[in-house]
This record gives sequence, structure tokens and C-alpha cells, in this order.
Amino acid sequence: MPETPQPETYSYLGPAGTFTEVALSQVAAAAGKPWRSVNNVGEALDDVVSGRSAAAMIAIENSVEGGVSATQDALASIPHLRIIGEYLVPVNFVLVARRGTTLADVRVINAHPVAYAQCHVWLDANLPSHGHIPATSNVAAAASLFDSDHADAAIAPPGITAHHDLDVLAENIGDNPNAVTRFILVSRTTTTPAATGADKTSIIAELPDDRAGSLLEMLEQFATRGVNMSLLESRPIGDALGRYRFVIDLDGHIDEERVADALMGLRRFSPNVTFLGSYPRADGIRVKFDQRYGDAVFTEARDWLDRLKSGLE
Amino acid sequence: MPETPQPETYSYLGPAGTFTEVALSQVAAAAGKPWRSVNNVGEALDDVVSGRSAAAMIAIENSVEGGVSATQDALASIPHLRIIGEYLVPVNFVLVARRGTTLADVRVINAHPVAYAQCHVWLDANLPSHGHIPATSNVAAAASLFDSDHADAAIAPPGITAHHDLDVLAENIGDNPNAVTRFILVSRTTTTPAATGADKTSIIAELPDDRAGSLLEMLEQFATRGVNMSLLESRPIGDALGRYRFVIDLDGHIDEERVADALMGLRRFSPNVTFLGSYPRADGIRVKFDQRYGDAVFTEARDWLDRLKSGLE
Amino acid sequence: MPETPQPETYSYLGPAGTFTEVALSQVAAAAGKPWRSVNNVGEALDDVVSGRSAAAMIAIENSVEGGVSATQDALASIPHLRIIGEYLVPVNFVLVARRGTTLADVRVINAHPVAYAQCHVWLDANLPSHGHIPATSNVAAAASLFDSDHADAAIAPPGITAHHDLDVLAENIGDNPNAVTRFILVSRTTTTPAATGADKTSIIAELPDDRAGSLLEMLEQFATRGVNMSLLESRPIGDALGRYRFVIDLDGHIDEERVADALMGLRRFSPNVTFLGSYPRADGIRVKFDQRYGDAVFTEARDWLDRLKSGLE
Amino acid sequence: MPETPQPETYSYLGPAGTFTEVALSQVAAAAGKPWRSVNNVGEALDDVVSGRSAAAMIAIENSVEGGVSATQDALASIPHLRIIGEYLVPVNFVLVARRGTTLADVRVINAHPVAYAQCHVWLDANLPSHGHIPATSNVAAAASLFDSDHADAAIAPPGITAHHDLDVLAENIGDNPNAVTRFILVSRTTTTPAATGADKTSIIAELPDDRAGSLLEMLEQFATRGVNMSLLESRPIGDALGRYRFVIDLDGHIDEERVADALMGLRRFSPNVTFLGSYPRADGIRVKFDQRYGDAVFTEARDWLDRLKSGLE
Repeated sequence: MPETPQPETYSYLGPAGTFTEVALSQVAAAAGKPWRSVNNVGEALDDVVSGRSAAAMIAIENSVEGGVSATQDALASIPHLRIIGEYLVPVNFVLVARRGTTLADVRVINAHPVAYAQCHVWLDANLPSHGHIPATSNVAAAASLFDSDHADAAIAPPGITAHHDLDVLAENIGDNPNAVTRFILVSRTTTTPAATGADKTSIIAELPDDRAGSLLEMLEQFATRGVNMSLLESRPIGDALGRYRFVIDLDGHIDEERVADALMGLRRFSPNVTFLGSYPRADGIRVKFDQRYGDAVFTEARDWLDRLKSGLE
Repeated sequence: MPETPQPETYSYLGPAGTFTEVALSQVAAAAGKPWRSVNNVGEALDDVVSGRSAAAMIAIENSVEGGVSATQDALASIPHLRIIGEYLVPVNFVLVARRGTTLADVRVINAHPVAYAQCHVWLDANLPSHGHIPATSNVAAAASLFDSDHADAAIAPPGITAHHDLDVLAENIGDNPNAVTRFILVSRTTTTPAATGADKTSIIAELPDDRAGSLLEMLEQFATRGVNMSLLESRPIGDALGRYRFVIDLDGHIDEERVADALMGLRRFSPNVTFLGSYPRADGIRVKFDQRYGDAVFTEARDWLDRLKSGLE
Repeated sequence: MPETPQPETYSYLGPAGTFTEVALSQVAAAAGKPWRSVNNVGEALDDVVSGRSAAAMIAIENSVEGGVSATQDALASIPHLRIIGEYLVPVNFVLVARRGTTLADVRVINAHPVAYAQCHVWLDANLPSHGHIPATSNVAAAASLFDSDHADAAIAPPGITAHHDLDVLAENIGDNPNAVTRFILVSRTTTTPAATGADKTSIIAELPDDRAGSLLEMLEQFATRGVNMSLLESRPIGDALGRYRFVIDLDGHIDEERVADALMGLRRFSPNVTFLGSYPRADGIRVKFDQRYGDAVFTEARDWLDRLKSGLE
Repeated sequence: MPETPQPETYSYLGPAGTFTEVALSQVAAAAGKPWRSVNNVGEALDDVVSGRSAAAMIAIENSVEGGVSATQDALASIPHLRIIGEYLVPVNFVLVARRGTTLADVRVINAHPVAYAQCHVWLDANLPSHGHIPATSNVAAAASLFDSDHADAAIAPPGITAHHDLDVLAENIGDNPNAVTRFILVSRTTTTPAATGADKTSIIAELPDDRAGSLLEMLEQFATRGVNMSLLESRPIGDALGRYRFVIDLDGHIDEERVADALMGLRRFSPNVTFLGSYPRADGIRVKFDQRYGDAVFTEARDWLDRLKSGLE
């Protein structure tokens, strides 16, 4: 028996207390709706594809670790997904332990590998000879302290104590105080959020072949329309070494002429291009562009061409 | 009293016997219509603008001398002109003289400066110490022999003896046996000749300012659409040294998508762009272009964008 | 007391049996020398920096998973490292278990997350309801079977049975039969391996600022010298979201003029560029380039300039 | 018997009173040296090539009429010429006549065709029904008034009355009050004038072939080194329609690194490039360029490459 679709449900990488949950809490529309905790990006997107959830919140990039490959590859391979929102969550960590543990007691730390890598400096200075057990998530690392005594402490998000009865042995143990993770809200809708003037457009595109200058030619599609690129990441297509697709974020919205024109140029150029959506930027910073790429300039040029072609001018 | 418009009249640089007349004789539609001989490019275009003539045949480029500045500047400054055809005339010259004159008698030659320059080699070899009187046209040079005896011979087009009773002292005296002049037929129509697959599109454009790389950016409008440029000539705008407009011929027709898209790109880029027309090439050579710039590719990309914007995909 | 440098030692991600060890076994110069097994990229490079080892073999890219971020970031941040060789290892996996275990017994699998992700299809088909315990390496996954009985089976490299007494429950369980991992041999030498005609040059560069078209301008440094780029990966600089450096592989060797000229262009352009070395390609495929970018063309142009500047021409 | 070389002689388009003479009077080194009046550009350059003169002053461009084709073509075809200076002369005209003539008497005007074209507006307004006799130079036009009475008046440079006993019927009759002609001083020296910070570099180059984007690629040689182009003119190579060479002025001096590097890039690109010289700009305006193209940046990059190649870094 098929599951009853729950179009108002939001999936996220759980359990409660993860950074992803913090990101989801920024979504006004999700307030008061069912939230579904899942184990990984694949499950989150499965929920969206199958209709179990209206949308899924997933991490796409960390300011220290870079792009989240699993997310990028899933967006490239699963059809009909759309990004409808972007959210930023400052990333910091605490070292937690079972009640009564002191820092001097800590020999082995349970931590998600990404979190572990981001606390390298603090760990080297304060626990130079510790051991490490990898966890599947930051919250799972903390929760594991109750499941076994293999680890003495765990690296976890600051909000973990709202969910688990643990002592905080140290705060702000992340190497980079400005670390931030960028999340996206992914849906199956084909309705694009309205342009706000502070938008991003995400696409994934393959190059036509490996001739010299092919990437350059692709980037010219944007540059010649004054469209700035805020992200360019290559990901292997996977069939052979040396074949890549590119994950690209553009400044602007598909309803802006210069972006639309660049998208058409890209579509003509690339053998395989996926439009992932136009959506408001998390930072709310309005996109700046030279006025010679303004909508009116495009409209005027199209009207001029139409007049020429119809013999009116 | 205004002149009665004669929409079937064709103006050309006369008198009878000029290369321009030869060009006009290639125009099937002009056969049997009134031909009006004028003295220079300005008069020819005045005829078109005023409606005295349906069209004017004027020289635009010579394979040895280069672009005809007067024509290029007139096309840039007189509005509402359109090129509707292109014609090529091989350029060769004969040395003619009054009956009874021999080559040994020739001391002074009457010749249009352009023709004179193109016979430099022959003159140096055969008449090393001659003098030169400039004429206003090749036919006028020959005709002058009957007006005065200042000159002993004249440089003229091969067909001159059909119009004047003269002796030919030497044939094929041009330096370059492959010299050719390119002519254009100019009208005021706004109806563009249908695309033939072997077409040119002529434009004149100014650069937005003199920042480094501005010309490069203009040329990218063509290159990024796979549109080849067969001519690029700079002409002074005339208001100050160092300010230029560019006379450009593109391979292709405005009804071809890649050309139309490039024209829109140029319109957006340039503060002043003049569309001079799309018309069949004189040489009839079909335009070759990479199939990734074919009409269907543009149409598909536009349809894709439309589906995205309307939420159908 | 400082360690005695062992310049002939080679470090690699161990223990014995890893794909990295397979890569190291391809290095002729390493045969018969001490091999030092380490736990991660950081330790391997520390060995090189400290002089404990002459060189370290580390994974840089997998055809399915993409670039190895830890390696790329280490190369960007640790000075004085040089890539001196490239090696390819086909990646395939076996499912192993303690003696006597059958496939039907398998409930929980121990596997390195990367390996686990690459066996997704086989696992879904054959063990749809299994659990997963992450390991720190492929060999550690197998070894863990002897440490505890939390897991019933492990995903391991094909050569694992040479090191551990285990049953192979299934072979070739990787999703992609052509999967390959690219390794690099890293040293502190400043001597570049001689050009072979089949070389790569690796660099890491930052963009001068985030103005539109900045990346395009960087890539033009290569394109205008006919230098092909086989890899372009962005990595966060780490100080703020949206700031990237680029890991780049070029076809060719620093001793080839077009590459040297492109490197100088890049050095002038980028506020921070790291030369990681020129070294023979693992696939031995000779680099093809247009002969107008040949060494002789560069030499001739330089000689011409010298003659002009010295007044000889 | 060969002519005795007169290395201090300066040739110019005469006779006394021409704009070319005004240009030559700006050359400090020419003061007190013999000046040789010649009839055309060809004779002036012949003097230089043969050694009869040390240098020749010739017009290269007029702000209204554009480039002087004869000069451009001569520079392209005569080897071993160098531009060593640039001079600007404001171009204005007077209408002169034999003593006692009034404006009402004027029926026919003797004028050089270029001067005649530049007085079009005044002539239309004041002498709408005049006739025109072409002259070979502006001064010859005035002088002709003494030779015959075919013409009643002549268009001449303002200084003409210093040389001829004529009445000035009207002053400032040129259409454009800012019209200016640019002259160059041409020599056979291979010593380049020292860089002043306000220099030009002139070259003539052919494109490698007529593939789409070939001109674009040539211009990128300049743009990628931050070298601005102040002039780009196409001239027919002359062997066939549609084959062009380009006359180019660059901002800067061959002794500046960015210019030298661009010249090498051009030499590699073009099958035929002629260096015409680096010389001080007539307007004395210092060349502005982005400091990332400064000499020190180039030197640093070259030193860096040298250190890398020699194993010092």
C-alpha cells in the first residue's frame, strides 16, 4: 500500500539538534508542519521524489569543507528537483561528555569526520593524544555516549544540551569562528519563487567535449551578459576519469533578462544542462550588475530586432 | 514643385562606361528601367533619400584600395538606407589616347587617382617620366582627352571604346590581375531580401567608450554565437581624433537565429548601431557555421526557457 | 632528540592492502626501500615536511567521488611540497567476512564511507536491509572484523586476503567497473622531473577578487597559450563563504614554453599561486597541442623581440 | 654616380605652406637642417629608403577623413621603416583668390579632394553652384591660381599668404573646427626613442587565416596584458577580396614589459607582423594602465619562473 503523500512534511538530516534542523527552523512556512528526520541526503531527496515530503533541507556547502559532494551529485542525477530557498547556519562546536566527565578523563572522542576536521586546532592544543571514532552525524556522535563507553566525549552542535543530558566540557572549539554551512530547501515544484532582486540561480552543466577552451567558452555565456558566478564546482560525471560536470551558482533570477539570456546560451552550448532553480539568497544582498545588462536594455534590443524583421524600421 | 518620384529609376556613378555601370548591369530588376548617371556617392544616395530613384549602385570596397570611405561615411550618417544587393566587378584598365597617338608620344596622363595608383607598376616600366593630371572618374579621364590637350593619354575601363572614339595604347595595365571592386545596391526599403543561405549582414556600430578591451567585447558578441565577420573597418566618427565607428559585415542573414541573437547582443552593447541590411552575397558562397549555432538549437533553447519560466518543466 | 631523516622512506595510507599501497608498488624507485604506513593524508605529508620520508603517496581524485578535499587543502596550505609522480589504481571491492560466514548471515557491514557509497547498487540488490558501521580506511574495515562482532562483513580491496584470513563473500561489488583512483607522489624536492612529452603541471591559484569575469580572465591565461586544462576544482579558502581557490591541472611541462608562459601569466594575475610540480602523466598519453604554440615559436618570438629592443632589426 | 647621402635632410609633402610643413616645423631636431619638398608619400619614403633623407614627415590620419591609405600601405610594404615621432596639426582652411577677386566672382574652385570634402558645409551655404577642379595638394591648389584662370579661387591652409600674394576671401571654412591631422616622422634607424611614459607603439599584422574568431584572438593578445589599442584599421593585403592586414596603435612602449609581452604574443600568433616603432605620443598624455600590468609584476613573474625552473624554489 503506497504511503499517503504528506505534502506539508519537511525532511531534514536529523535527529533533533543538528545544524540542518537549525536551518529548517529558519523556514517560516515550515513552522507548525510535520518535520521528518532522516539519515542522509539520499533519504531526504527520496522523500521529496516520492512525495512523502513537500521539501527537504540539505547541506550544500560549508565555508571550510567546501561543497557537499553527495548533495551536488544527487542534484545532478535525480530529475525534477528544484531549490526553493537558501539558508545559512553558523557552525560551531562544543565538546560534550557524560555527566561527571572532566577534560582530563577524555581519551577517545566520537565525532562526525567533518566536525572532527574542523576542530583540529583545539584538539591538537588540548587533547593531543586522543583517539577518534567516526560518527554518522554530529548528533549521533553525542547520542553514542549513551550507547557505549567506547568514547569519553563527543563533538556536537551547541544546541545539543537541549536534547541530551550531557556536560559541556568546552565551547567554541571550532578552528574557524566564522565557519558557516549553507543549506538549500529542495522541492519538486516547478513554480519558481518570485524575483526579489537578491536571488541566486543554480544550474548543473556538462561541457560539450574536452577541447581546449571549452570551459572558457561556457563561462563566456555568463560574462558576455554581465552575469556574475558566485560558485563553480566540478564534479566527476563518474563514467571515466577526467570527465566533469559543473555546479554553478549565478547572481540573479531566471525572470531577469540577462540571466534568462545566459541560460539560453548555456542550453545551446551544453549537451546536458539542469536548471535547479532561482531563489532568494540567504544573505539578502541585492545583486549588483552593470545597468547595460538591465531588463529594459534587453527588451529594447528585442523590440528593435522585431521591428527590423517585420520591416517597421 | 517637388520632383515626381521615379521609384523604378536606378542611380549610379556615371557616365556610361564606368565600373559602376557594369555593376548595375548585373541587376536583373534594373533591366529596362531608367538609369540615372550621377557624379558621386553623395548624389547617388540623395537620389535614394529624396525618392528620385528606387536604388543606387555605389562602390563600397576595392580589393587593392580598400574600403570606399565616402560610401562608408554616408551609410553611417544618412538614416533609413538599406543594402539590398552586392555585386563584384573585375577591375582592369586600358591606356587610351586620341586617334593617332602612340605610346612614345605620351608625356602626361589623365587618370582618376585610384586607377592611377593601381597602374603604378606598368607606368613605372613603360612611361617612367610621365606627368599625371587627376580626374574625377575613370570615364571623365578618357573624356577629358577631347576637352583639352593637357593630357596625351588616359587610364580608363576596358569598355570605354564603346562610348568614345579612342585608340587603346595598352591593355591590362593594372598591377593586380585579380583586382575587383565590390558594389552595393542601396535602397530605402525596409523589406529585407529573403535568406538564401549565402547572405551577408552589414552593420555600423560605435563602441560604448574607449576602455581597454571594448572592441574585444563587441567582437565577442559575434564569436559567442558562431557568427563570422568578413569585414571590420574603422572610420572616424569625426568629432575628435581617436573616436571610431566600425563598419562590419557578418556572414549570415537577420532571419537566421544566430545572426539575430548577435544583433541583439550588439544593440545592447553599442550606444549606436545601424542595421544596413541582410542581402545575398555576390559570390554566392553558402555560409558555413557550426551546427551548434543552427536555428533549431536556438529555438530549442528558447522553448526550454519558456517551459521553465511558465512552470511546465 | 630529533629523528634521523630517512630520505629513502616512502609514506602511504596503510595498512598493507590499501589501494594506496597498490599505487606505491607502481613506483620503481620505491622498490626495496622502507615503506611507512600512516593513518591519513596529514600524517603522510608531515612525514615529508619533517624529512622522515622522502616522499608520500596520497590519493588526489577518484573517478566517482571526485577530488580528495583533504589532499587538495593540504597541498594548498603546506609550503614546499611538490608532486613528482602520478599513479592510477583501478578501484574494485570485495565483501569479506570471518571464516564460515555466509551472505545470508550478514546483517551489519563495516565499510569506509567512500567505499560504502561506491557499492550502493550491489548492496541494495543483495543486502537491502543491512546496517552500516563506518571505518577509517578500507583495510581497517576488514581488520575490524577481528576486533569485535559488531559487523558481520566488511567492504575491502581485492588484495585484502593476502593480509587477513577472511572469506570473500562477493567480488566486484563496486557500482562502476571502470572506477579508478588517481594518486600522487609528493616530495619536498625542488628538482622537477624531466619533460617526457606526456606530462602534467599542477597549480593552485586564488582569484584576485570577486569581480565578474575574474575566473574567465584566469582561464584565458591558459587558452591564449593553447594550454589545455584537464582539471579545475574549486576549494574554499576557508575564511569566508564564497571565497575559493582553484586546483588546476594543465597538460604539459614547465620546461615547455607555452606552459612556462602561461605560468608567468598566472603568476601576474593571481595574488597567490602555488606551483605543485610538473610530472609524467600516469596514462602516458602524449600531450597534443597546436604547433603554433610549439617551443620554437616562442623562442623565435623572443629572439625577434630581443633584436628589436637591441636595435639589430 | 650615386647621390651623396644627406643624413640630416628631412623630406615632407610640399611645397612650403602645407600642413606637412607645419608638422615638420614642430620637430626640434629638424631646425636648421635641409628640408626637402616632395610630391607624395611614395617619394618621401623613397628618400628615406635610399638614404637621401634622414627622415620623412608624412600624414597618417585625419580626424575627419580617417587613415591615410597610401601611408598605411607604404608602411606595410616597404621594409626597414620606423616611426620615430608623432605630430598633430589642427586643420583649417581659407578660401583664397587672385588680388581683386570677390566672393561673388567665384565660379570654380581649385582644391585638393580631401580639403574640398572638409569644406562641404561652408561651400553649400556660400557658393552653392560652384564647380570644382581637383589639385594634388592644398598648396598646389593655391599656386594654380597663378598658372591658369580655370579656377577663380582655391582652398588652402591658413599660412598660404606667407608664400603667395593672394587675397583671403573667407577664413575657417572647414566643417569641423576641431579637425586635426596626425603626422608621423619616419626613418630607417633601428634605434627606438627612449620610453617617456607617454608613448605609442605601432604595428601592422596579418591574421593567420579567416577562421571565425581569428581577429578576436589577436586582440586578446593585447587585452590579456592590459594593453590598450588606440587604433585598429584594416587594409586589404591586395591579393584577393576579403584578405586584410591590420594597422594597430598600442598605448605604451616596447621597453615596457606588458607591451613587449604582447608583441611576442602577436608575433607568435600572426604569420606576418611588422614593428613600426615605439615613440612619444604627440599629445603627451601619459599612458594609464592597471598596476597589475606594471613592469615589476612582469619581472617578478619571470624571476619566479626562473627560480622554479632552476630548482631554487
